[in-house]
Amino acid sequence: MKVGFVGLGTMGRPMAGNLLKAGFALRVYNRTIFKTESLVAAGAERVDSPSEVARAADVTITMLSDSPDVKEVILRDDGILAGARRGSVIVDMSTISPLVTREIASTCEANGVDFLDAPVTGGQSGAIAGTLSILVGGRQCVLERVRPVLEAMGNKITLMGPTGSGQIAKLCNQVVCGLNILAVCEGLALARASGIDLELLLDAISEGAASSWMLTNLAPKIVAEDWSPGFRIALQEKDLRLALQWAAENGAPLVATALAGQLFSAAKTLGWADEGTQALSKVVLAMGGR
Amino acid sequence: MKVGFVGLGTMGRPMAGNLLKAGFALRVYNRTIFKTESLVAAGAERVDSPSEVARAADVTITMLSDSPDVKEVILRDDGILAGARRGSVIVDMSTISPLVTREIASTCEANGVDFLDAPVTGGQSGAIAGTLSILVGGRQCVLERVRPVLEAMGNKITLMGPTGSGQIAKLCNQVVCGLNILAVCEGLALARASGIDLELLLDAISEGAASSWMLTNLAPKIVAEDWSPGFRIALQEKDLRLALQWAAENGAPLVATALAGQLFSAAKTLGWADEGTQALSKVVLAMGGR
Repeated sequence: MKVGFVGLGTMGRPMAGNLLKAGFALRVYNRTIFKTESLVAAGAERVDSPSEVARAADVTITMLSDSPDVKEVILRDDGILAGARRGSVIVDMSTISPLVTREIASTCEANGVDFLDAPVTGGQSGAIAGTLSILVGGRQCVLERVRPVLEAMGNKITLMGPTGSGQIAKLCNQVVCGLNILAVCEGLALARASGIDLELLLDAISEGAASSWMLTNLAPKIVAEDWSPGFRIALQEKDLRLALQWAAENGAPLVATALAGQLFSAAKTLGWADEGTQALSKVVLAMGGR
Repeated sequence: MKVGFVGLGTMGRPMAGNLLKAGFALRVYNRTIFKTESLVAAGAERVDSPSEVARAADVTITMLSDSPDVKEVILRDDGILAGARRGSVIVDMSTISPLVTREIASTCEANGVDFLDAPVTGGQSGAIAGTLSILVGGRQCVLERVRPVLEAMGNKITLMGPTGSGQIAKLCNQVVCGLNILAVCEGLALARASGIDLELLLDAISEGAASSWMLTNLAPKIVAEDWSPGFRIALQEKDLRLALQWAAENGAPLVATALAGQLFSAAKTLGWADEGTQALSKVVLAMGGR
């Protein structure tokens, strides 16, 4: 099966690398050319536009930052849809708006090209290890055609429902993630303000009812004042914004998510957009003058 | 070593049971007498006042609901301190105010009785299994004298610092717990409003960055609309109130914890005080008319 890949950032590059390892013929395109180099060295073919990526492909994958990027790279004049042959499949693995997803999907389908939304959880480490959890929206029969491709990148593939359902499930995931890291930030802020030893505290509570992936993986970074990403503040802020828009469309007031969204927005304002989500801790501490 | 125990509720009764199993001579007192029956049948001696519990004890343990209860049962005329011999130790394992803890401790110490705060995490299941994490505040030498008693109830004992530090650490834990369950409630509310299959969602996200003890243990209860406690809404509300009071005293504004506290307070107002903390979900859903 021939695969095209557009968007070779933190996530996309290792995901594309796993496709090569699994033996798929791979064509890649990235706006920033140097990000294609390691893949070209490993056997990928680099082309000069998204339409060329799609030209020979059975499946074309996008892994980009936000809704406008995905819409443009698929629908523009030299975009993926312009090159895609009838009967091929476009799989968007970015995290974007469910509404924009449905718009893109119906344009693709009107042109005889199938579409799946398939955002992922598991972060860069999951992308590298090929252990992503892939949340799919679309038709079962289309999923079955691309399943071998997805299995090269993830070890859990769940069809959540019709088009957009993968994105909706991802936004639910991001609501939980955003509030779980905020929980860690406030718990540690209280400990710090009280003069409690943070490492002792983490050791004492990290296996009980307070435990979480965020507590295990990001609390030690907060204690060490290591703000390197993992998952960037800017992306978490975008995801909560999408979740809140979608929640508003569906009559689900999410008061804590709204607050968390504002705090991630503050983190951006304060200049920490490209730091890891654990940098939210600095916003919480700043409110106490720390 | 002779041990006294006051407060035989959901947590206290199995903890006292584990002391009996470990071979400690046990005297118990509880305001509601029938709660002592299973322990008396297992070999405990029931007496009629907290002072009598303490009379022969090397260590007297309290496990009660809130600061006023603990203060009264230790300091009142026929309270624990009135019966405790000089050189014995009072260990309060309730979750109460760090400030009240320090008041009680200094009154005890002025009367020649040592004091430790030693609240626990691990819930009723940990109390039954003897696998509690015990967060201790006080002096190391006092802890060493009572360590065998604590080891009969918990498998992780951490000296967090001077008197009150156990309570402070517990409040940090409760901040994380309160926000983690709120995270689950909002994530599931968004999924429900969107028509996403909740069980599929939990299966897809429960091992990734959204994972938490709350997601694993309480999200399935929310999906099943099972509001039975675990840990009661009323106690989580009280713990967040204590955390916010302590945070205010220490110049640590905790905006999300304050919001969570209000939502738990709403759950009490709506009549769900004695349900499990997962009943917070009903408050979140109510805001969307569900």
